[in-house]
Amino acid sequence: MASQNLSAVLHGKNDLRLEQRPIPEPGENEVLLRMACVGICGSDVHYLTHGKIGDNAVEVPMTIGHEASGVIAKVGPGVKHLKVGDRVAIEPGVPCRKCDFCKQGSYHLCPDIFFCGTPPHNGNLSQYYKHAADFCYKLPEHVSLEEGALLEPLSVGVHACRRAGVTLGSTVLILGAGPIGLVTLIAAKAMGAAKVLITDINSHRLDVSKKFGADYTLRVSKGIEEKQVANEIRAILGVAPDISIDCCGMESTVVLGLQATRQNGVVVVVGLAETHARIPLRPLFYEIDLRGIFRYCNEYPMALELVASGKTNVKGLITHNFSMKDTLKAFSTAVSGEGNPIKIMIHCNKD
Amino acid sequence: MASQNLSAVLHGKNDLRLEQRPIPEPGENEVLLRMACVGICGSDVHYLTHGKIGDNAVEVPMTIGHEASGVIAKVGPGVKHLKVGDRVAIEPGVPCRKCDFCKQGSYHLCPDIFFCGTPPHNGNLSQYYKHAADFCYKLPEHVSLEEGALLEPLSVGVHACRRAGVTLGSTVLILGAGPIGLVTLIAAKAMGAAKVLITDINSHRLDVSKKFGADYTLRVSKGIEEKQVANEIRAILGVAPDISIDCCGMESTVVLGLQATRQNGVVVVVGLAETHARIPLRPLFYEIDLRGIFRYCNEYPMALELVASGKTNVKGLITHNFSMKDTLKAFSTAVSGEGNPIKIMIHCNKD
Amino acid sequence: MASQNLSAVLHGKNDLRLEQRPIPEPGENEVLLRMACVGICGSDVHYLTHGKIGDNAVEVPMTIGHEASGVIAKVGPGVKHLKVGDRVAIEPGVPCRKCDFCKQGSYHLCPDIFFCGTPPHNGNLSQYYKHAADFCYKLPEHVSLEEGALLEPLSVGVHACRRAGVTLGSTVLILGAGPIGLVTLIAAKAMGAAKVLITDINSHRLDVSKKFGADYTLRVSKGIEEKQVANEIRAILGVAPDISIDCCGMESTVVLGLQATRQNGVVVVVGLAETHARIPLRPLFYEIDLRGIFRYCNEYPMALELVASGKTNVKGLITHNFSMKDTLKAFSTAVSGEGNPIKIMIHCNKD
Amino acid sequence: MASQNLSAVLHGKNDLRLEQRPIPEPGENEVLLRMACVGICGSDVHYLTHGKIGDNAVEVPMTIGHEASGVIAKVGPGVKHLKVGDRVAIEPGVPCRKCDFCKQGSYHLCPDIFFCGTPPHNGNLSQYYKHAADFCYKLPEHVSLEEGALLEPLSVGVHACRRAGVTLGSTVLILGAGPIGLVTLIAAKAMGAAKVLITDINSHRLDVSKKFGADYTLRVSKGIEEKQVANEIRAILGVAPDISIDCCGMESTVVLGLQATRQNGVVVVVGLAETHARIPLRPLFYEIDLRGIFRYCNEYPMALELVASGKTNVKGLITHNFSMKDTLKAFSTAVSGEGNPIKIMIHCNKD
Repeated sequence: MASQNLSAVLHGKNDLRLEQRPIPEPGENEVLLRMACVGICGSDVHYLTHGKIGDNAVEVPMTIGHEASGVIAKVGPGVKHLKVGDRVAIEPGVPCRKCDFCKQGSYHLCPDIFFCGTPPHNGNLSQYYKHAADFCYKLPEHVSLEEGALLEPLSVGVHACRRAGVTLGSTVLILGAGPIGLVTLIAAKAMGAAKVLITDINSHRLDVSKKFGADYTLRVSKGIEEKQVANEIRAILGVAPDISIDCCGMESTVVLGLQATRQNGVVVVVGLAETHARIPLRPLFYEIDLRGIFRYCNEYPMALELVASGKTNVKGLITHNFSMKDTLKAFSTAVSGEGNPIKIMIHCNKD
Repeated sequence: MASQNLSAVLHGKNDLRLEQRPIPEPGENEVLLRMACVGICGSDVHYLTHGKIGDNAVEVPMTIGHEASGVIAKVGPGVKHLKVGDRVAIEPGVPCRKCDFCKQGSYHLCPDIFFCGTPPHNGNLSQYYKHAADFCYKLPEHVSLEEGALLEPLSVGVHACRRAGVTLGSTVLILGAGPIGLVTLIAAKAMGAAKVLITDINSHRLDVSKKFGADYTLRVSKGIEEKQVANEIRAILGVAPDISIDCCGMESTVVLGLQATRQNGVVVVVGLAETHARIPLRPLFYEIDLRGIFRYCNEYPMALELVASGKTNVKGLITHNFSMKDTLKAFSTAVSGEGNPIKIMIHCNKD
Repeated sequence: MASQNLSAVLHGKNDLRLEQRPIPEPGENEVLLRMACVGICGSDVHYLTHGKIGDNAVEVPMTIGHEASGVIAKVGPGVKHLKVGDRVAIEPGVPCRKCDFCKQGSYHLCPDIFFCGTPPHNGNLSQYYKHAADFCYKLPEHVSLEEGALLEPLSVGVHACRRAGVTLGSTVLILGAGPIGLVTLIAAKAMGAAKVLITDINSHRLDVSKKFGADYTLRVSKGIEEKQVANEIRAILGVAPDISIDCCGMESTVVLGLQATRQNGVVVVVGLAETHARIPLRPLFYEIDLRGIFRYCNEYPMALELVASGKTNVKGLITHNFSMKDTLKAFSTAVSGEGNPIKIMIHCNKD
Repeated sequence: MASQNLSAVLHGKNDLRLEQRPIPEPGENEVLLRMACVGICGSDVHYLTHGKIGDNAVEVPMTIGHEASGVIAKVGPGVKHLKVGDRVAIEPGVPCRKCDFCKQGSYHLCPDIFFCGTPPHNGNLSQYYKHAADFCYKLPEHVSLEEGALLEPLSVGVHACRRAGVTLGSTVLILGAGPIGLVTLIAAKAMGAAKVLITDINSHRLDVSKKFGADYTLRVSKGIEEKQVANEIRAILGVAPDISIDCCGMESTVVLGLQATRQNGVVVVVGLAETHARIPLRPLFYEIDLRGIFRYCNEYPMALELVASGKTNVKGLITHNFSMKDTLKAFSTAVSGEGNPIKIMIHCNKD
């Protein structure tokens, strides 16, 4: 096997380099993957432009990337359910398997989790990469490797909807029509939501959201009183939403979610753009729950079933494709937002 | 208002008569309905052919029918959300509202529930009928009165799937492709089930089930060992089903559900064709839950949203239509099964 | 029956008067009660001293009081489970029984609920009072009428613990050792909490809380950084609490709850002393849920079982007793806090 | 370290021998335990007297025992939370940590679980034994090693009550007052059950159950119609039980549970004395759930908290103590039932 393993390595703020790294050797219960597709996530861009997220700083050069799929190139000892040539989606987090969170079925909260492309763990935007075999999900023939890579963001949407309790007949408000808003929309509709209203400040994004099943859209502007927007939302829907999912994580959106949702409903916050929010306490009093989410857990199989069922055109999320050698261009497109990217996909071995 | 109220009155076993009855006067929080459509349920047929179901016997002449829709003809005092002319689906059970079951959100189990067309309570296969206003659900313009009547069986399917915990990605086995099997199938798919396998002894029914979204069908024969059928099912699905919903209620189907379902899964029994079943206890030991269902509760709004969303062609369940005056013919078709009826609809005021 | 019905009528801010009012006549499914005990709640005091709570203002003279027990003096038509002479606890809210909240088992959120002693509804600090029979709970012989009146605040504690998911082995932090903190403590221990730490700024209250089962107490002071207090709490408990229940409803306590609780835990807010709180969003991200509570629902029977079981000395909450004619003195004690009152009980017919 | 490791080795049906075996060496994340106490479980006795349970046969000589506690004698690499000298309770099952059941928090259903003393896995009735460190729970100073060993059966009781949904105010029927009935009783009371009625055919056992908190006892006889017994139970309790927990696993007890429980309630079956049961289906129709249980999962910490809290005299379950050298006598006592044993404890290193 070639010793060449071209990798996108982040050396620090605004210093992303394509470099050769050694090809790793899969250990027990691991597989080596010839990487196929890696999507660019907002967090990847944030690491690039800021060198850190919160306290999590890139201190040594780190391969980035975690929304990925690949083809099995080698199987380590003990691996039974995969063989060379299998096409798989890669769930990027591998937990310790021994702490209380792991044992209780919340492995995403494991404090010792290895998570691809989050410092200090290398990611998988590279030609070869090794991973725990049980976190690689074999794709059915009719599911593409691009779709395999999309399972990562889609799992976030599924997790958000599950934490929110979306079910048959739910009326759902989604705040923000960026990539996470869209995967949440896709998941909500797949789980039986009756009516989904999605908001954004960008009308192009709202147009796109209609293609993914939004029943209603509302363009919002900064600086408008949340109560007024909440009233508009209730007027459009005919009722207060059962569930609001905030895919922005700003004070204004958290407050809007609390103001808009019906008594007894749920507001889920996905992602944190701001560190604090001044919230009204009265909605809590009416038993509206405020919940956040952290990545996903046991939801890759659900996301895969959703894609495999063909119910929704998840592939339509991909607006741009680049080959590995054009990685820097791919990231500069993500940073500039030129061409209204939703999901930018990098193909690791397509040159 | 005319005092004529043609009604289908069951006087005893095999003695159904069309008779004039007085038009009732709506009391407080009640509405008078000019009835539109009433579907024939298996239980209506059973009352006709046996004069009773279990210990529930028709002792005085009783109007039959409970799968119904109508148009508001008059509103009683206190009614606010409905007005004359509104088209509504009628949820047939009106509970006492004061017992523990009612207070805990399980009003369907209220021991003092009034239930349309279940002795000693009159049903609504008649031209006029009064009902509690809050159990009448206004239909959106694009939902037909036929569909309104179908909400009743559809709610059974929704309730079965909710008790079973069907969710995104669930693999579901449905035993029996009669009307209840089909509404369960529709509900399961709407709630995100990935793969549904439906079984029946009748291949015509299996063909029909494909139109309603069955991913797989399996024709079964009486007398085959349940373990063998369970193995066939697992082979077709590639895995053991997460959930089995038995829409037959026979010993053989309950046992098959228990044998087929994965550890930790759920077997739901809808309807009881047999009073007892000899079951293996080992599946319980592997934490497979065995649950029955009784009608539905808080599920009419969900069923309505499902129909209104246009996701599924519920209307396709209606295979036969009759006018009120041909009620006896409608029932004889239901009894004989001639023309492979799924749902037979009677139109109360269409002559 | 005498036409005299001495009642504590609030005419406006700081204007509480003892007046004769007519004895009401019980209607269908109602009972007339000869009132026994009525506890003074913080909300009663607030209505007295402010004339309102939030937007809820006393606009016409209103009998106050809602933590009550009584003896059946007369039964209206339809009442079956109660007879003259029965001693009962009175659940003060009677919902509409017809809205979605009522049907779904969340009758406490019914927008049309009658709630004793909340404007514009009269309370029951009077000699006679009529109420819906199904919201009167017969007391076993060994449960006193004083305890019957205490079921009201105790139900708040039970509801808080149920919303929080307290179960066997839970580690619970309770913020505030006032009456609501104490009933929450009692409920938490009864539901199997392993370790309960309770905080207050008042050391007397902390001493009292030990009598009701607090495993640990922590005296806090205003103005200390929440993170520091959270660390102290974790040090005392040896772990981060699974659940925090804020019985103060201030910004500082909500924030403390969020900082102290473990990932995946729950923070429940009971009562609102402040209208807004600036909260850190990061705890949400770690899937800590923030939930409020509104009164209680289906919990009177649980609270009664708790008292009847004799597991806890609920009666010990009563620190002061007054007869009806001394109602104004009872309230002035509640306002001044003289004698460290926990629960002040007024006896309506004991003179 | 001495190479002597006296062990109780089952060579086949009725062939239990005390033999020297090598002292194992702890691997990564493992600990070596100097065994302290091992309780005799009904399943151990069954393996001795039948050589198998169901299809699980003892094919090669196997050390028996799994209800155990010990003292850390050596720690393997990677172990952080334990050190030599720590006293621990040993959860006997160590799952694969990689399958869907493990990831979803149901590790007890892992098909590849190692389970102490279940063929082909050796148990720990020996002087030394190695185990996964994360399945060893450090005992607080005031909890004895005898109590540590009792956590195993107690966890079964906790799991049964959790699957049953026992909560504050629950009315619980327990069928069978053997060791499992008693631990279920202890757990139910600790979780807030208001009234527990326990049945048995043996009046001595019923007397014992009163010491562990049974509110009511009922002696039953074989051959009496289940409906009649169900009526007696309802008469004693004043209501139908919310929950029935069958600690016998016979047809008659499963049927009795279904007949006695209220609509909407739960029947949990613990252990299987019979392989099949002919059950009435009507109770399912009234939404009574029938659930089995398999061991326990994430419940050792709960059981430990229960014991540590001192709420219940769990130690009182131990009726007989033997030293390791008298193991055969201990088992013959268990087989004969002489002296009414509840729990027989063997002390591995006390000679």
